[in-house]
Amino acid sequence: MTSWLVNGQRDGHLSPADRGLAYGDGLFETIALRAGRLRFLDYHFDRLVAGCKRLGIPAPDCSQLTRELEASRQDCRDGTAKIIITRGLGPRGYRPPEVVAPTRLVSVTAADSSAAQAWSSGIRVRLCTTSLSENSALAGMKTLNRLEQVMARAEWRTPDIAEGLMMTEAGHVVCGTQSNLFLVRHGTLLTPPVDRCGVSGVMRRVILEEACRLGIAVQTPVVTVAALAMATELFVSNSLQGIGPIVRWNDESRATGELTRSLMAALVQRGVQECAGD
Amino acid sequence: MTSWLVNGQRDGHLSPADRGLAYGDGLFETIALRAGRLRFLDYHFDRLVAGCKRLGIPAPDCSQLTRELEASRQDCRDGTAKIIITRGLGPRGYRPPEVVAPTRLVSVTAADSSAAQAWSSGIRVRLCTTSLSENSALAGMKTLNRLEQVMARAEWRTPDIAEGLMMTEAGHVVCGTQSNLFLVRHGTLLTPPVDRCGVSGVMRRVILEEACRLGIAVQTPVVTVAALAMATELFVSNSLQGIGPIVRWNDESRATGELTRSLMAALVQRGVQECAGD
Repeated sequence: MTSWLVNGQRDGHLSPADRGLAYGDGLFETIALRAGRLRFLDYHFDRLVAGCKRLGIPAPDCSQLTRELEASRQDCRDGTAKIIITRGLGPRGYRPPEVVAPTRLVSVTAADSSAAQAWSSGIRVRLCTTSLSENSALAGMKTLNRLEQVMARAEWRTPDIAEGLMMTEAGHVVCGTQSNLFLVRHGTLLTPPVDRCGVSGVMRRVILEEACRLGIAVQTPVVTVAALAMATELFVSNSLQGIGPIVRWNDESRATGELTRSLMAALVQRGVQECAGD
Repeated sequence: MTSWLVNGQRDGHLSPADRGLAYGDGLFETIALRAGRLRFLDYHFDRLVAGCKRLGIPAPDCSQLTRELEASRQDCRDGTAKIIITRGLGPRGYRPPEVVAPTRLVSVTAADSSAAQAWSSGIRVRLCTTSLSENSALAGMKTLNRLEQVMARAEWRTPDIAEGLMMTEAGHVVCGTQSNLFLVRHGTLLTPPVDRCGVSGVMRRVILEEACRLGIAVQTPVVTVAALAMATELFVSNSLQGIGPIVRWNDESRATGELTRSLMAALVQRGVQECAGD
């Protein structure tokens, strides 16, 4: 059982009147705890603070959050940390209160047998029928409005499928339910833009940094299903699992490509041991 | 301070691990309590049960909900009741648990000085810049994913504006932040469809029933801003306030139209005293 710090209170509970529940009026971060370190914590804070600014929620004190994360993990060295920031309590109705007192929730769950499976040896993905809606006012943020991802993830239960790719109604493939998407074509790394939907992933940011460092050309074009078939390499990424090379698409097997391998090796150097394989 | 029944427990709290908070994975209803009666409760239950079915959440026991609403209101005769149903607890990740134990939250707030202002004498509205995203998988339901409405309602604070109309990115005007929209043109009642975004409002359903009974032609076309200007009558509706005739649009004053008045009179007969005016 995961314990939560709610506004610093151990085993705290949430008021049913919190706007995080009522409207999904808030943001979250899911952070890999590996060998006692909260991986890319500064990048997670960057996204969280930027999201709070866009939503008009006072930004959290990141030093305080760090202390609370450390207190929550106790002697746990490997697991998943989660931060939720909501707009807190308020009177009935959508209108945000004039004075916002955000609610701050922190937890750490130890890695256990139900932990996500390793992706490094390659994964199978499917195309979801639940579509992603587009709204530039919310795009890129990890808001608490995630029903589309829930509905998409509910589409399959077979354990051999690791992830589902999601499209807009216009047929643009943007991301997985819990990952960002990358393609390689003609030696260029492509990843869909996240300015109309999707989440600006922390691992996506690290991968783009490493691509730049390695001198790999990067573009962020709109991606169609046809473009997936034409890509020479395909992979997804997220904060907890690193890179997942897509080794089967359209009933066709693929090997993990060279550029994908270079990026995985670069991520291992950044502390993403999941990319090292078995 | 509103008290909540959480799964039947008085002054219950919510687990921070509830999927209602984590993902907005649930639905809600806001019900007018008037003269000791929960108005159109059966219609609210219809929408709630239909929404649970679409989301794959076991439908609540409406008899139990009714008992809990009655217990919550105690001797309160006028106010606002709220029901929240979430997919409950589950392991980390978007995937819904195999066995779902929904969380059931019920509250009643007594009407007070901060209660919504009467709409019957006419209201001013604005056009919001925050757009509504389209997703037929979620359209029509009153889900806990309401950040767009929050962002739209945050656009103005002047009390003389009662409501903000929201458009899709394609420029279709669909609804208000907390209301459905109706237009009259050539004696026909028009209301935007809610199959790609928007909420299938309970008061909207009552109005459409009354229009049918009165022999008023009804259509549900896509509505543009230009269509608003050409309408001879404009009004919004919701469960708590009934009908709000839009008496000012584009700096032009309008009187409450005849067809709007007929519908308001019909609603009074259905127990919507808010439509009776002062």
